[in-house]
Amino acid sequence: MSDILLLDHGSGGRASQRLINEVFVSRFSNPMLDSLNDAARLEISGPLSMSTDSYTVDPIFFPGGDIGSLAVHGTVNDVAMLGAEPLFISCAFIIEEGFSLNELTRIADSMAHAARSAGVSIVTGDTKVVPRGAADKLFINTTGIGRIVADPMPGGNRAQPGDAVLVSGPVGDHGLAVMSSRAGLSLASEVKSDSAAVHEMILNLIKAGIKLHALRDPTRGGLATTLNEIAAQSQLVLELEQTAIPVRKGVSQAASILGLDPLYLACEGRVIVIVPAEEAEAALKIMRGSPHGEQTCCIGRALQPGPDTGRVGQVLLKTPIGGKRLLSMLEGEQLPRIC
Amino acid sequence: MSDILLLDHGSGGRASQRLINEVFVSRFSNPMLDSLNDAARLEISGPLSMSTDSYTVDPIFFPGGDIGSLAVHGTVNDVAMLGAEPLFISCAFIIEEGFSLNELTRIADSMAHAARSAGVSIVTGDTKVVPRGAADKLFINTTGIGRIVADPMPGGNRAQPGDAVLVSGPVGDHGLAVMSSRAGLSLASEVKSDSAAVHEMILNLIKAGIKLHALRDPTRGGLATTLNEIAAQSQLVLELEQTAIPVRKGVSQAASILGLDPLYLACEGRVIVIVPAEEAEAALKIMRGSPHGEQTCCIGRALQPGPDTGRVGQVLLKTPIGGKRLLSMLEGEQLPRIC
Repeated sequence: MSDILLLDHGSGGRASQRLINEVFVSRFSNPMLDSLNDAARLEISGPLSMSTDSYTVDPIFFPGGDIGSLAVHGTVNDVAMLGAEPLFISCAFIIEEGFSLNELTRIADSMAHAARSAGVSIVTGDTKVVPRGAADKLFINTTGIGRIVADPMPGGNRAQPGDAVLVSGPVGDHGLAVMSSRAGLSLASEVKSDSAAVHEMILNLIKAGIKLHALRDPTRGGLATTLNEIAAQSQLVLELEQTAIPVRKGVSQAASILGLDPLYLACEGRVIVIVPAEEAEAALKIMRGSPHGEQTCCIGRALQPGPDTGRVGQVLLKTPIGGKRLLSMLEGEQLPRIC
Repeated sequence: MSDILLLDHGSGGRASQRLINEVFVSRFSNPMLDSLNDAARLEISGPLSMSTDSYTVDPIFFPGGDIGSLAVHGTVNDVAMLGAEPLFISCAFIIEEGFSLNELTRIADSMAHAARSAGVSIVTGDTKVVPRGAADKLFINTTGIGRIVADPMPGGNRAQPGDAVLVSGPVGDHGLAVMSSRAGLSLASEVKSDSAAVHEMILNLIKAGIKLHALRDPTRGGLATTLNEIAAQSQLVLELEQTAIPVRKGVSQAASILGLDPLYLACEGRVIVIVPAEEAEAALKIMRGSPHGEQTCCIGRALQPGPDTGRVGQVLLKTPIGGKRLLSMLEGEQLPRIC
């Protein structure tokens, strides 16, 4: 094969078949994918969790990951947020004519590795090649399916007054890593993306019988925006201790140079877990003992709205000097193509 | 809202939420989507059929359809090809900054209408906005899930010598409609895309107990390429009667002007059905009585490879004057961004 992708590779004809077999099927191989029918047959019973995301991250390779592993982790995590075990994903590529076959192969390797590590099978796919200039290098869509195991199922609307708010590790690493790599910044302490699959941590919590009220991964819009969504859906106030929120020193320093707030930067391997206060200690221990959860912290609590606490849907940050700052939802776009 | 899409609409923040609620959720509304969690909860039990496709068609509006209805029909059809009832789809948009909100709304209307007509729910989605020039207008990914009802399940490798090959109507309309609309050709007889959901026809065949050996929709690469795939997977020869293959007069005339062969042009509302010869008449009658199947034809048969018939994987076309022509798989790309 030529080292660059041609329109012919997306034609559905012979060149497409060769590309699909040599680059994708050989790496992702499993009986469902290998049948090469228009669809994949899955043996699974519900209730199911289904989630989709398109990845347009720029640059496609960044410290700590690439668009391929990100596309697996991001969708695996979204599927897991209903308290589900992710099992199957589809992947669809939109590739710009002239893209390097060598880079595509590296990305396929990275996806295969991420999927294997996460225990999910890539069961079906699609490859389109568009003329030069019609897309920027490569976009990947992944759609995931998992089996919901939590009962009752967590939801953004199920947080309760008194609940504890946990986050599984330092926030903002992904957003900052992509941003500084795009800007060509060389930071004193290199910051890597936190891109990772967090479902094992969730499944460990479920196995231990922890009552999960809400789960969400703080991607676009970061921790602050995601907590605003939960506060609004659950009709309560979330109060955070600023000093309790884990942010790496390198991230907070670089963010302040770039004029960014780490609480609004995307994470791709973190999860917000909201549980009854009395289960917070047990949950913390399980998360800290799970992969990618070693630095889990309790960062705040949910409160009944009222004159002393705040209005419905507000997220408030208690500062070290005892003040309270309103943490609103992201307005404007700091960072296009962050995921 | 402004009439053009801004990067902010893909930020995950407030503008994203407004866009998603006002344009998508209001039109696609159903309990699974409306929960607005990271994933949708589906009540369904397997075995399931799952398929994904990204749509990059250019132009996004064409005679007989648009990128939105195409994205629903194409994926619904792929899911149905395992003998399945399509039930749920996800949709993910990659939008170029500056795209018209008015056009996006028309496309959302068209998707909502196509999904309702096909009886599927749009249960989850994603919206990314990329900077001007990083994508051409709009790309849509849809991923579909259905319940497999055919038992045994049809497959590209299950055609048998002696089987009849049926096609549900004239071929090449979609490819030609998009191509001529892109080229700004005004053809004497306007050709419209055949874009449509064909699963009802398939479900009618299953209900009637027809033994479905292979089902496939001839999209990219057209009828010729799709039959080549089936011939190779099933290890036999497919012999077609050229005069039996339905091609609209307007399509064959315009194709000859453009130097295209209708047998290689994409269809988006046709299905190839391969059944035992003794069931061909019954299948023909059911398909002709189903929506979008009125013009179903029997176009050929499957043969054991051999010196008198052909080699494994060959598709042969019997011409009106008694000759045989090898119909190979598509080589090269005639028509990028056809679907």
